[in-house]
Amino acid sequence: MSTIFRKIVRGELPCYKIAEDSQFMAFLDVNPNTKGHTLCIPKKEVDKLFDLEEGAYQELMRFSRKVALALEKTVPCKRVGMAVVGLEVPHAHVHLIPLNSMDDMNFSNKYHMEDEEFKELAKSVHVNL
Amino acid sequence: MSTIFRKIVRGELPCYKIAEDSQFMAFLDVNPNTKGHTLCIPKKEVDKLFDLEEGAYQELMRFSRKVALALEKTVPCKRVGMAVVGLEVPHAHVHLIPLNSMDDMNFSNKYHMEDEEFKELAKSVHVNL
Repeated sequence: MSTIFRKIVRGELPCYKIAEDSQFMAFLDVNPNTKGHTLCIPKKEVDKLFDLEEGAYQELMRFSRKVALALEKTVPCKRVGMAVVGLEVPHAHVHLIPLNSMDDMNFSNKYHMEDEEFKELAKSVHVNL
Repeated sequence: MSTIFRKIVRGELPCYKIAEDSQFMAFLDVNPNTKGHTLCIPKKEVDKLFDLEEGAYQELMRFSRKVALALEKTVPCKRVGMAVVGLEVPHAHVHLIPLNSMDDMNFSNKYHMEDEEFKELAKSVHVNL
């Protein structure tokens, strides 16, 4: 099944990219809970996080930590939260969400941003990697 | 600050323990979103997940994966979700939540269980480690 994430990995869909290496990508969620809400994904398509082979899982967690630390430097927040749900897109992805309250973890709360803001934010986080 | 988790680690408060090694503990959340909702914590008291030193963070993630795979074997669910929030207890903890719907990630949704059920469930997950 071709998910939106596969298309992003292949460059068939654009994204507000923060980081990329041979195995992983990080980009801003276009429907963010809060400003700075980021997705970290393995390029390899695996549905469930815990079905990733242990080494790949560990590397995804390492990559996500690096991005989370850059988010903390960039976006004013109490801390960066992490969530893995995966019921909606069957391609494992780690949500990193700058938090100021418990409600910011609620996926029905959304924060509106314009295209230019997304672009500038992605650049600012990238610089702090 | 002495958190509830420090007291659990020290054995000053009881818990429905699933796993323990020299660095980490896993036990059932007594106020679970869903049946099987589990917390994985480092014994060392660090407030924010991403403030853990990289090695300790990686080991906590490895430990959490092992517990998540045991939960998936034990509790009927579509998948096990993961969340790190940390705004309420300043001792880093990983929530593992057996999910059947997006609502199961919502921390205001709670599932009631009796003491005996918690005890039996913790044993069943432990056996599947």
